[in-house]
Parts: sequence; C-alpha cells; structure tokens
Amino acid sequence: MTQPTPTPPTPTPTPTTPTRTTPPTTLPATTLAAVMTGRRRMELRELPVPPVNPEDGLLAVEAAGVCGADVGFYGQDLSPRVLGHENVGIVAAAGRIAQDRWGVREGDRVAIEEYLPCGHCDFCRSGEYRSCLESDASANPDALRFGSTPLTTAPALWGGYSQYLYLHARSVLHPLPSSIPAVQATLALPIGNGYQWTYLDGGVGPGDCVLIFGPGQQGLACVLAAREAGAGQIIIVGLERDAARLAAATKLGAHHTLVAGEDLPERVRAIAGPAGVDVTIDTAAGNEQTVGQALDLTRKRGRLVFPAATKRPLAGVDFFKITRKHLTVKGARGHSYAAVEWAIALIGSQRYPLDLMCSLECGLEDADRAVRGTAGELDIPVIHAAVLPQPR
Amino acid sequence: MTQPTPTPPTPTPTPTTPTRTTPPTTLPATTLAAVMTGRRRMELRELPVPPVNPEDGLLAVEAAGVCGADVGFYGQDLSPRVLGHENVGIVAAAGRIAQDRWGVREGDRVAIEEYLPCGHCDFCRSGEYRSCLESDASANPDALRFGSTPLTTAPALWGGYSQYLYLHARSVLHPLPSSIPAVQATLALPIGNGYQWTYLDGGVGPGDCVLIFGPGQQGLACVLAAREAGAGQIIIVGLERDAARLAAATKLGAHHTLVAGEDLPERVRAIAGPAGVDVTIDTAAGNEQTVGQALDLTRKRGRLVFPAATKRPLAGVDFFKITRKHLTVKGARGHSYAAVEWAIALIGSQRYPLDLMCSLECGLEDADRAVRGTAGELDIPVIHAAVLPQPR
Amino acid sequence: MTQPTPTPPTPTPTPTTPTRTTPPTTLPATTLAAVMTGRRRMELRELPVPPVNPEDGLLAVEAAGVCGADVGFYGQDLSPRVLGHENVGIVAAAGRIAQDRWGVREGDRVAIEEYLPCGHCDFCRSGEYRSCLESDASANPDALRFGSTPLTTAPALWGGYSQYLYLHARSVLHPLPSSIPAVQATLALPIGNGYQWTYLDGGVGPGDCVLIFGPGQQGLACVLAAREAGAGQIIIVGLERDAARLAAATKLGAHHTLVAGEDLPERVRAIAGPAGVDVTIDTAAGNEQTVGQALDLTRKRGRLVFPAATKRPLAGVDFFKITRKHLTVKGARGHSYAAVEWAIALIGSQRYPLDLMCSLECGLEDADRAVRGTAGELDIPVIHAAVLPQPR
Amino acid sequence: MTQPTPTPPTPTPTPTTPTRTTPPTTLPATTLAAVMTGRRRMELRELPVPPVNPEDGLLAVEAAGVCGADVGFYGQDLSPRVLGHENVGIVAAAGRIAQDRWGVREGDRVAIEEYLPCGHCDFCRSGEYRSCLESDASANPDALRFGSTPLTTAPALWGGYSQYLYLHARSVLHPLPSSIPAVQATLALPIGNGYQWTYLDGGVGPGDCVLIFGPGQQGLACVLAAREAGAGQIIIVGLERDAARLAAATKLGAHHTLVAGEDLPERVRAIAGPAGVDVTIDTAAGNEQTVGQALDLTRKRGRLVFPAATKRPLAGVDFFKITRKHLTVKGARGHSYAAVEWAIALIGSQRYPLDLMCSLECGLEDADRAVRGTAGELDIPVIHAAVLPQPR
Repeated sequence: MTQPTPTPPTPTPTPTTPTRTTPPTTLPATTLAAVMTGRRRMELRELPVPPVNPEDGLLAVEAAGVCGADVGFYGQDLSPRVLGHENVGIVAAAGRIAQDRWGVREGDRVAIEEYLPCGHCDFCRSGEYRSCLESDASANPDALRFGSTPLTTAPALWGGYSQYLYLHARSVLHPLPSSIPAVQATLALPIGNGYQWTYLDGGVGPGDCVLIFGPGQQGLACVLAAREAGAGQIIIVGLERDAARLAAATKLGAHHTLVAGEDLPERVRAIAGPAGVDVTIDTAAGNEQTVGQALDLTRKRGRLVFPAATKRPLAGVDFFKITRKHLTVKGARGHSYAAVEWAIALIGSQRYPLDLMCSLECGLEDADRAVRGTAGELDIPVIHAAVLPQPR
Repeated sequence: MTQPTPTPPTPTPTPTTPTRTTPPTTLPATTLAAVMTGRRRMELRELPVPPVNPEDGLLAVEAAGVCGADVGFYGQDLSPRVLGHENVGIVAAAGRIAQDRWGVREGDRVAIEEYLPCGHCDFCRSGEYRSCLESDASANPDALRFGSTPLTTAPALWGGYSQYLYLHARSVLHPLPSSIPAVQATLALPIGNGYQWTYLDGGVGPGDCVLIFGPGQQGLACVLAAREAGAGQIIIVGLERDAARLAAATKLGAHHTLVAGEDLPERVRAIAGPAGVDVTIDTAAGNEQTVGQALDLTRKRGRLVFPAATKRPLAGVDFFKITRKHLTVKGARGHSYAAVEWAIALIGSQRYPLDLMCSLECGLEDADRAVRGTAGELDIPVIHAAVLPQPR
Repeated sequence: MTQPTPTPPTPTPTPTTPTRTTPPTTLPATTLAAVMTGRRRMELRELPVPPVNPEDGLLAVEAAGVCGADVGFYGQDLSPRVLGHENVGIVAAAGRIAQDRWGVREGDRVAIEEYLPCGHCDFCRSGEYRSCLESDASANPDALRFGSTPLTTAPALWGGYSQYLYLHARSVLHPLPSSIPAVQATLALPIGNGYQWTYLDGGVGPGDCVLIFGPGQQGLACVLAAREAGAGQIIIVGLERDAARLAAATKLGAHHTLVAGEDLPERVRAIAGPAGVDVTIDTAAGNEQTVGQALDLTRKRGRLVFPAATKRPLAGVDFFKITRKHLTVKGARGHSYAAVEWAIALIGSQRYPLDLMCSLECGLEDADRAVRGTAGELDIPVIHAAVLPQPR
Repeated sequence: MTQPTPTPPTPTPTPTTPTRTTPPTTLPATTLAAVMTGRRRMELRELPVPPVNPEDGLLAVEAAGVCGADVGFYGQDLSPRVLGHENVGIVAAAGRIAQDRWGVREGDRVAIEEYLPCGHCDFCRSGEYRSCLESDASANPDALRFGSTPLTTAPALWGGYSQYLYLHARSVLHPLPSSIPAVQATLALPIGNGYQWTYLDGGVGPGDCVLIFGPGQQGLACVLAAREAGAGQIIIVGLERDAARLAAATKLGAHHTLVAGEDLPERVRAIAGPAGVDVTIDTAAGNEQTVGQALDLTRKRGRLVFPAATKRPLAGVDFFKITRKHLTVKGARGHSYAAVEWAIALIGSQRYPLDLMCSLECGLEDADRAVRGTAGELDIPVIHAAVLPQPR
C-alpha cells in the first residue's frame, strides 16, 4: 500500500540571542508622527521627543501593524492621538530602572504589547495582566494603552505610527531575534491572540474539528494555531468579499473555506458529521447570526470562544443549547505573555508563508492608507498592513 | 485576642461495607404502582412483575424522591407511565450477568441513577455517560430513562413510585450503607447534582464568593457543595414565597439569603464587593432575568453554570459581557458517577441536618400528593418529597 | 524573502461507517491457536470453539500485534496460554445482550482493547477503566486480560494468536473502518498509548520540546503523538543497536535522534537550550540511568511521564530535583478509550508512513518468530510484528 | 433521627480597605538590627538607613516571622546578614516610581513576600514568579531574596529582624488590614504555602483523605488549607517530640494525629481504607522513609506533593509504584501571589485559633531566642515564633 510521505521535520530553531545593535548616541529633539486628528483625518506632525527618565524609555519604531481596532478608531471623532499598537523596533533609550525592570538594554530589538498593566493587582500578579482593571479602557476611562491614549496625555508618543514610541515603565517587552523581518514581527500580537483563543482558551488538540468565523488577521491566526495544535479539520467561514483571505487561509493550513450563507449549517455538518464541530471560535461578529450558528454547530460537550462580540444585547439567543449540550462558552480578549512568545517563535520558524498576510506596507505619510486598506477601502485585498515610520 | 473555636473535627466515617440483606426468596406476581395516566392524574394499579433475565433485575423500592422534573411531567398530558427516578432500595433479584456487570448481589442495598446509558459510545466509555446521546430524550425519542419511560415499553416498571422497579441491564447502581435512612438517600441524585455543578463544573474553591439562583432541592444542594468546597460567601436567591426554603438554606450553610427583586444587584454587590461574585449557578430559570443578572453580577474572569435553561430563545442577552469580562459559561445537566458517590458519603457523614430538606413522605396511594407538594400546591412548605412504596 | 511552502492540508477523512461483513453462518467446532506452553515454547494446537452465550461473542482474528510485554511472557516459564492482546478482526458471533452492551452486530470489524474491566468500580464508571483494580494483574491474581489469561480459565481463547478470540462480556470494542489494513490496525493500542502518555498525560502542546527515551513501538507512537500535538522539537534516544528504529523515528516526525551515552546530557542541552526540555517520556527503562537523566534534563516546571518502570527499588534517585525544579512526575500505563479512538483515526488518515513500523508478519505456525523478532533475536530489524492467524 | 447542628455560617468579612497611617515625616539615620555574624551568633547592631530612591522604599517592620529556613541559616557559618523573610509592617517611605509599581502609598500596612523576582522572565510574566531563575539562589549565586541576602550587598537591610527593611524595587507587597494582629500576619507566607501545596498543587477537594507529614508551621498550614478545601479526613504525622504541635493540629482541623513509627502504614490504612489516601503532602523530610511511605500509602491515581526534599540522592526509591499506581508526584516550593492573598483573608476571617500557632514573641535583642525556639532548643514548645523589632 502506498503511503504519502509526511513533511520532513523542520526543527524549530534554537532560541536566538536577541539582537543588540548600537543605539543612537543622541536622540533627536523631535519625531515625525502620523497623528489622527479627528474622524478619518490623519496628518504628519513633528512632536517633541521627551527626555528619558530612569524608569522609562523610547523605542525607535521599525514597524507598526494595523489592527481592526485601528479601523474602529479611525472612524470615530476622537481627540487627537497616534494610533498603532502592534509595535516592533529598537530600544533607543531606556533608563537605569527601566532596564532592570524590563530585562533589556539600549540597542535591543523588541516587540511591544499593547497593554500597560498596573503590575500589582491580583490579575497582574497572577500572569493575567490582560484582565487588569486599571488598564482596561472599558473599566477605567484614564486607562493607558498603546495606540489609543490621546496626545494630551504626556508625553504624547503612545502610538507606533511614529518614528519614536514612548516606553512607559509598565511596558511589556519581548526580545525579538534579528532574523525576523520587522513587518512579519508585527504579527506577534494577532498570532499570539490566535494561540490564546484557539489553544489556551479553546483547548484545541490533536484531531479536533475547529470552526472559525472570520478570515481577518485574527481568524487566520486561529487557523495557524489550530494547525499547530494538531486540529484534524479546520473550517473557516468568510463573506463573499473575503475570497483573497480565504485563499490565504488555505495556504496557512485551513482544510475547508466556506462562504457564510443559508446553507452554512448543512455544509459544516457535511464536513464535521451531524454531531457538529469540537470547537468554534468567532472572530467575526459575536452577533445573533454567528452566536446562533456557533451554538447550533458545536457538538455536545464542545467549546466556544468569543473574542468578537457585538456591544448591544442580542435577540433570540438559544441559551438552552448551552445547557442541553453541556457547552462551555468562553469570552476572550487579547493574549498572555506566553502566547506572544509562542507567536514570535512560530514566526521565527519560517514554517508558514506569513508574507501572504503582510499585504501592505506604508510610510508614515501614508499611514491612513494602511488603515483604509485594512478597512477594505482600497482596491487591493489587504490582510495585515504595516506602517514603517523610518525614512526609507 | 479572643478567637472563636472552630467546629471540632467530625471525621467522615470510613466507607462502610454496603448492606446485604436476605432478599425475598420468591418474587410476587404483581406489584402496586402509582401510574400517571394523564395530565394531573395518578392512580394505583397492579402491574405484573416480569421474570428476571440473566442480564437484568428488580429493585424492591424503599423510597423514591420527587424531582422538579416530575412536576413538569405531572402537568403534561403524557401517555401512562410510572414516575420516580431518585430511587433507593434492595436488589430483590439480579440475573447472573447483571450481578457481574453491576458488581452487586441480591439483597444489596443501592441507590439507582436516572440514566440508562448505552455503555459503549465515546461519552459512556469516557465516564461522561450523562451526555450519552442514545439515552438523551432530547436527541432520541426512544431513549430509556428511569421515571419517564412509558408503560408501553416493556416491562413497564420504569419508575420508583412502585413497589418494584425494573433494573435494566444498563442501570447504574451505587452501594448504599444501611446507616442512611432511605428518605435521606433519595437526596443522592440532587446532592450529586449540586456537587457536579458547583465543584466539578463551577470549580468553586476555598474562599470563593458564590451566587446561587433558586432555593429548591438543587439550589440547596449547591449550597451544601459550596460549603464543603470552602466557599467564603454563599449567597442564595429565592422568591417571596421561598421563605421556608431560604431558612433551610441558612441552616445548610448559606451566608446570605436574598429575595429576587429590583435591588438584587445592589445587595449582591454589597456582599461581594463591586467586582461581583466568583461563581454564579442558576438552578432557577435560565431566563432573561437570571441570565442577565448572572452575566452582570459575576466578576471578570468568573464562571457561570447553567443547569436551568428556558427552552425558548432569550431576548436581550448581553453576550458582550462574556467577552469583555472573559467569563466562562457552562451548560450543565445531571451528574457523574463520582458526584453521586460523593453525595452518598456526605449524606452518610450526618454533618448536615438533611432532615430539613425531607419535608414530605407519602405512600403509593398518595404519590400525587408528593408531586403536588413539590409543586408548592399544598399549604405546607415542601423542599424534597419522597414516595415510600412499601406497605407501612 | 523566500518562505518554505507548508504541507498542503490533508483533511482527516470524515469518520467512516464501520464495515460490516456477513459473518460466518456457522462457527467451526475448533480453532487453531499458537499456545505458549512454557518458557520460549510455542506450539500450534487445535482448541475447541466455545458456544456463544447471550452476553459474549467470538472474534475472527485478522491480526494480532506483538507487544513488548509478549516478549516478557515468552521468556518466563508460565502455565500454557495464548498470547496476543493487540487484536483486530470481525465479530464472528455476539450474543443478544453482548450486541446491546457493545453496540456492535455480527460482521462488524473491530479493534479490541487488552482490558476486561469490571465496569462498575469508581474508575470504570469514571472512564478510567485502565486503572480498574479488579482487572489489574498486579492487584488481583485472578484478573482477566486478553493475551495473558491462562488456558485453564475457560474458554481458553484469551489471546489473539488464534483464529478465534473469545469476546468476554467485559470486552472493550472499537469500530474499525475497512480502509485500514489489519496489520496497521494492530497499532491502535500502541499509538493510543503514545497519545495518552504524550498528549493527555504529558500535556505536550504547540512548540514544546519533548524528550523520548526508547524508540520501540511505544516510543515511536510518542513521536507521532508529539508531532500531532505540535511539538516544536522531538528528541528520541535509543541504543547503538536501534539504528533502524531511530531512522524510522525520523521518518515519523522526530527532529533529532540520539544514541544513549555519556554525552547525552550535553547533546540534549545543545538542542533544547541549557534549561532543558519541556516534557520527558521514558518508554525505555525507568531505571537509575533514565530516571536520573530525565530529572536532570527536564526544565523547571517541566513534566515527566513514566510508562516504563523497573520493578526493583532504584538507588541514588535525586528526588530533590523534583522539589527544586517544581517538576510534575506522572506514572502512566495503557490508554483511555478516547486515546484508542484517536489512534484509529490517525491510522485511517494515512498521513504517516506507518508501514515503516509494520516490519514482520507471521502466520500462526510462525507466531514465535513474531515474538522473537520483536525481541530483536532475528537478523532483521523489527519494530512492530503481527501474527495473522487466518489461513492465507 | 437526631442530626448534629452544623457550624452557624461565619461570613468571611468583605475585603477591608488596607490601613493607611501617617508615616514618619523623617526617617532615622540608623536602625537597630539583629545581625547574624556567623554560626549561631547574632548581635544587635546599628546600621545606616539608606536614602530612599524613586524606585525603592523602606518598611517599618512590625513583626518578622521565623521560618524553618532561618534555623538552617543559623546553623551555618555564613557571612553576616540580617535574617527574617516573613515580614509585615508599615511602608515608611516609598519613591514615586515604587508607589506606582507597587500600588501603595507611604503609611500603608503590608505583608512582604520573600521573593525579589526579576519581573520580566517567562515565569514572572506568567504569574509563576516563585520559579524565577534570576531570584533562585540554587540557580543564581547573586540572587536577591529577603532574609538571606548578605550585609555586603547594599543597602544591607535585607532582613526583617530589624526596625527597618529595605524595600527593593522588585518587592512583592500585599495590602494588610489593620484588624489582623501583626504576629498573626507573619503567618501569611506559611499559610499561603499550605494553600499552594494542598489546594493549588495537590488538588485537595471535598471529601478527600489527606496525609500530611510534619506538624511544623507548614504542615499545620496544610491542615488549615485541607480543612478549608473540604477534605473529609486529614491525617497528620509527627514525631514523639511533636505532642504540642499535634495537639494544635487537632484544634486547627486535623481528624487524626499519628506518631511516626513502624505501625504507621497500618494505622493510616485503618483510617483511609486499604486503597490508601487520596493526597499525600510531605512537609517533613523528603527522605527515604517519608518518600517510601508516601508512595506506599497513596491510592491508585492519587497525588503526592513534595515541598520538603532531602538534598542527597535517595536510596531504594520504589519508582515503579509511581507507574503501577498512575501516581502524580509534584515538587513544590513557596507560593503564588493568590495563595498569600488567600492566607491573609483566612487570617482576617478569625475562624481558626491561630494564636495557637503563635507561640513565641521576641524583641530584636532576643532574635536568636526566636530562632532557637523554632529549632526546638527551648524548653517550651514553639510552632511559630516572631521577632518584633520596634521598641515596646
């Protein structure tokens, strides 16, 4: 009997010593930043570079990824701020205390999380700083967070669409090997989310059948994580307009790509069997339709993860299915530290064609184009866009 | 400084050898049973006692507990059947194969689970037979189950409101020590549910603040389990009419009893703190109100268990709270084997005044009164009623 | 930048309906079996085929895998018995009660577990029947088990080196699709073990570095399971004589194969980094050397699984390493039902060249050769041998 | 039937706002400290109080508990240092950066953990800072840690046997309500250990039978935690000389106290049944005898936790029992943040007569007496001693 040959094993490279380059001896007095000044308005400004204190620092931004949340910000009439929270770069300056706290030195290459957690609450002390109340904007209007804190909060440089990013004392840094291209490294947070939701929260394991709603960067990251966790069947659901994203999903490891529609339940069951899928992850909507289908299509004792949620109360939720099928439904937002470390290792392994996801690179002067591309407003399909602030 | 003296430790008694009494040498040709013949109609009938086959047996019923589900059956116009699925008694007869399969001999005293699981599906082989599809009435109209299978399915004796209960080959038996009064032993299933939902599914642990909706037998069982699991604060919520049940809750270990109403959220937060409770268990309704309050009153990263669920889609469910607060919501039904074993050990420990819960004992001729008492139709408060089928 | 193309996704086939063939209308009066009559003595005998009772059955054996345990039996002077506990075949006969209990009909193709668990103890009722005390030979000298129960226990046909195997009422059966060759199907138990020890017990997950001692069929099964669970680095250690097995390990997904020796610690650390591996599984020996190296080479907070154990007390165990490094050490034996189901699905997926493991097929008359091959006594390298009892 | 009345529920008090008192406006230039100057030598010295930097602070020590580890230090000829790592007191001074990092203000009352974790490694970022390699003395000779860092490491004030303790930037602080007496508050770390090992690591739950070796403060803390977690049977084992400690164990909730000796296995089995206990925790020795008995007396599939470990390799370890009985053996050291928070809440609840454990209070001039008392060298039984450094 003929057997297909499996992939020759590609070893994950041994963890590399993080790159250290000679940092600039003197910092400039000002930096260029793309400031969002109001609804759908972004302009290049020259902002002062603050002096570095013992407890903080500055990042020379190599690249800032664009997140779906940035599209949301861009469409609102907010006070001026610098967007960008998927940031990678070189530690241009770090105070004495900051270096000890962060475990880095000037010149180190790092990826920065979006969170600025308080560091001392129960959640922070237990490794769940993504749940920190002090840094949760929905619980605390003064919460600090990269990419959304306004310009009026000193020292203004809170976003990555800028040559320099302020590194607050509370920053969470990840050492980043030089072998990873900056633009791919901006995927560390979305891929970390995929690992968190799929493996850590959803418990996907070898042979599981996984249903993922939404082929955006987060959904594709769930495909990657499900693939790595050994899922036997990965089904991803998009809209008519998502053809390019669904094609990327296939190349990243999805076994089936489906277009949302009336026959979705029937088609999922044709793949998963009548009992339904083991795990469903909704990165798309969290609305009546996806919640309803998720509860319907997940098998008895299955698990559901909802990183996406519609902010209004839902009508007609068949909560009884949760009870009758003994389902476990988990809310999820963001990632743990371990998830981002895993994502960096995965990107570094070069085992997936992640260039597929990196569809658009813009300079600072074009930062709005990166956001509009992510919003689907350009005539090219964009999965993950990045802003590259340094002059080229 | 004066310290309150803690309870002197009361050791759980060493597991007793299950009682074995001499079984009746000959079985009677007929048995008396209270047959539900239609909506709110029950009558005493004489039914034939079937011959015992090698793979099955007969239970001489000592007592059959009344469950809320029985109230539901009683209110529907169903085909004739014998109710009663919280059954304890003596194995009056057991075939050669049955004795090996069940690990019992004639004369053994046992408690019987409600389930008749197939025994060979993935769930059954993995210890989760409560999820067995073949024995799930909502998935399989021909599902066998004690206390609800109709008279037309031979040999008719499927319920405990009868002097003899048919022990199908698939029965799940628990050895029962002679020291436990039969009426208390009928609490094995509801107390097992409490342990399952509170400890195994809800993960309640030392110091947790637990909110329980519904002070019926299941809710009180959750109080017991939460108490045993070391909960620091147990809050139980009932209706105006539940005064006696709430008083019982206090005696069984609840720290706070609250009456449902507009000020409930405020009162729960006054006890639990503004963040909310660690775990919520809804044994009451699973409707818009309890689901809404449960999602509202459970703290970030908290857990919710829903053994009760309304069978129609719910309007206005704030699903977003699940995501924003990283909640874990679990559906739950019934119990595992270990849960019932734990319940029997707890009952046997005599550490709780379980007589409080055993409010009403009826003979076979009065079986409908036991159901109506459970439904709250009598002018005495009833928590757990039992039918005692043997002549007294 | 050039990216390696990942494997095109190979969907796991939708679970197939188990094959049902027309069973023999009449059973023969006798069957040929290879009976082990004493130390290293095996002879072909004609044994009576017992009548089928309502609760039991007979398997027409297609193939019986040879396990390392068989080598152990073969070297001891035991009373006569038929070896073989990795059995696959067709249900030639099954009584009325057995068909209900097992969920099969005559003609069904199945794989049979080695266990004959009691079915009613706490472990059995909780899905952990591999821990059943009644069927554990080290706890109960009368324990029944396929492949080791002696000929004197009626009806004698307890092993798979026979045309017919007695299916005791307590048998655990797995439906087996017709697409899986019988010889590969005999890997269901060892591959199930690999999944159990690596994924379920060892918790191997995406990116983990895993160290496996022993490249026998069990160790190779751990390689498969680690690969499927997303391990980033799989290191397997064998002896000088294991060259063929280590070569197979590479083809099944191991990233590194090492030969045991003085420099092993150094070489493992060169791969895993100085902190050590995440998970170690010892399928080889459980003796001073492997336990010592396992405790030494596993990182802080890592996990160790010991399915292999030397039966004499060990000298010089550095137990302090368990404490200092917060290690978790798990004993493990055999598999759960879910593990075997997973193994059958993996085999059926045809994604691995399992023919590599199936090195030797013998007829009944040659059954001893299959055992001696597994023992390494032939001049061909043998990983997994199988006995094919039907005339060819 | 007469039922024993259960304890009336004693609500855990709602979390109190941490006490804030007016801190001293000026810090003294020097502080008195009991310096261990060599083996069994301690002397009162006047040491300079360092200036407070933005990132650090000073604790006015109210009380410092004495740990068994202090007895170990006291018996070695180490370079001079101030012992004491179970510290509680008032934040006398805290720099601007420290206040933000710790979430405290000057005047706050706090308990201090012994660890000074790096804060940025994988373990620290995941809430497992007790495993931080940088602050682990067995991995890093320069590791900082309260109560053992030598005088030569500036600013010398690393131990609690001193009026002032240096609060390094990496300190882990817990708010402490004013209602808890300082001496009881020094139990926060040992009781936190008990919760960690018994509940979090050992998984003790309702009804479990728990065997604890060693009735010192850590073993008694395990009794408390087992009691709170609902253990059905708590057995604690001490030596002949431990009569007072075993008596205290009973008052804190142990069901059985046993004296180590040849008949121990028999007596444990008489309580637990022949299968053995569910969980064993060895706080006593981790030597051949306790490890051997622990492996022997724990039931199939049971769990063992080893916070105590002898630092030399053990002879004659029956590792095979781990495999045969499917045991889980966990190494454990110290506690998580959540464990200490739980301990503080338990102490604050006043539900246990913790004064029983607080046997000896000494002033600074008597600090050696507190250590010698803990070592059992005084003619009074001592469970937990405390040094109270402030003038009385």
